[in-house]
Amino acid sequence: MRRLAIALVHWPVLDQQGATVTSAITNLDVHDLARSARTYGCSDYFLVHPVSAQRELVARICDHWRDGSSGKRIPDRKVALALIRTATSLEDVFVQLGGRENIEVWVTAARSVGAAPIEAHEARVRLDGQDAGEKPVLLLFGTGWGLAREVLDGADAVIAPIRASEASGYNHLSVRAACAILLDRLRGAR
Amino acid sequence: MRRLAIALVHWPVLDQQGATVTSAITNLDVHDLARSARTYGCSDYFLVHPVSAQRELVARICDHWRDGSSGKRIPDRKVALALIRTATSLEDVFVQLGGRENIEVWVTAARSVGAAPIEAHEARVRLDGQDAGEKPVLLLFGTGWGLAREVLDGADAVIAPIRASEASGYNHLSVRAACAILLDRLRGAR
Repeated sequence: MRRLAIALVHWPVLDQQGATVTSAITNLDVHDLARSARTYGCSDYFLVHPVSAQRELVARICDHWRDGSSGKRIPDRKVALALIRTATSLEDVFVQLGGRENIEVWVTAARSVGAAPIEAHEARVRLDGQDAGEKPVLLLFGTGWGLAREVLDGADAVIAPIRASEASGYNHLSVRAACAILLDRLRGAR
Repeated sequence: MRRLAIALVHWPVLDQQGATVTSAITNLDVHDLARSARTYGCSDYFLVHPVSAQRELVARICDHWRDGSSGKRIPDRKVALALIRTATSLEDVFVQLGGRENIEVWVTAARSVGAAPIEAHEARVRLDGQDAGEKPVLLLFGTGWGLAREVLDGADAVIAPIRASEASGYNHLSVRAACAILLDRLRGAR
């Protein structure tokens, strides 16, 4: 099984008008994506934020659930939060994973993008590759109105938007829901 | 396609010690489950709480996203929140759906229960039933440490816990993630 890491990107992401902005850390994103990542055997969960005070907030949340009163109250949580790493930028994530050339970067986008997307079931087959030489996969999720164009353009693969079997015409899942669904499609028991 | 409604139960649910308690409304549960429900074509999203002040909180959140400043800022959200109904109890939900005898109640439980569970793919087939005479399905999710025993015992079907393909030994998804994954397994495009 190939190594799979996830990253939640707070910069560069889009706002409603399509401008590139920095979004704020959301407490439940820290918890929910860590729990989903741990359930589906991810190796790392990177929270990408250029502002040091926001990265320190993540560290304080993790400390509280590791060594603080909440760590005693709900010990399961620290097992999930142990996957969390902070990074100043995507480049920092690449370095922490051994360099951009040594990983595959996959993105998922609710909106259509230029590159021909692959379906989640195709991505699942690629991820199941038994060849130990295959590169680790880094799966990126965007906050706000999604990952900036240059992040999508720089990816090695784009996974098609999540859809219902009977098109509902609505495609506004939370990032907490989208990450959970995609990890289940990639690594859920079938 | 059979009608599918979901309910998030705040009473009766278990606490960490197994006692039956009432949990508090969480703002992001209101939003995330509504967005997932809307994406996968659910007809209703019931928030079940016996305390009127908590049901009024739900109503205020919905008002804010329908008629308030947030409704203007993110108009997509009101489409999802329009699925929300509040209920004082599960019995109240049953009445709102036409009576307990006229619906099928399904539960999903992270822990094992007495009744033989069905796998999500079996539940998907049952839900796809083309027979218009089949009863609507009400899918229950518990907050806290899960639905109380009597709720599980009173269900018509129990869906097996969500698992990863390579067992990670960790099964502590957030209810926001668990609901999203199960709806995708039941009604996601394959």
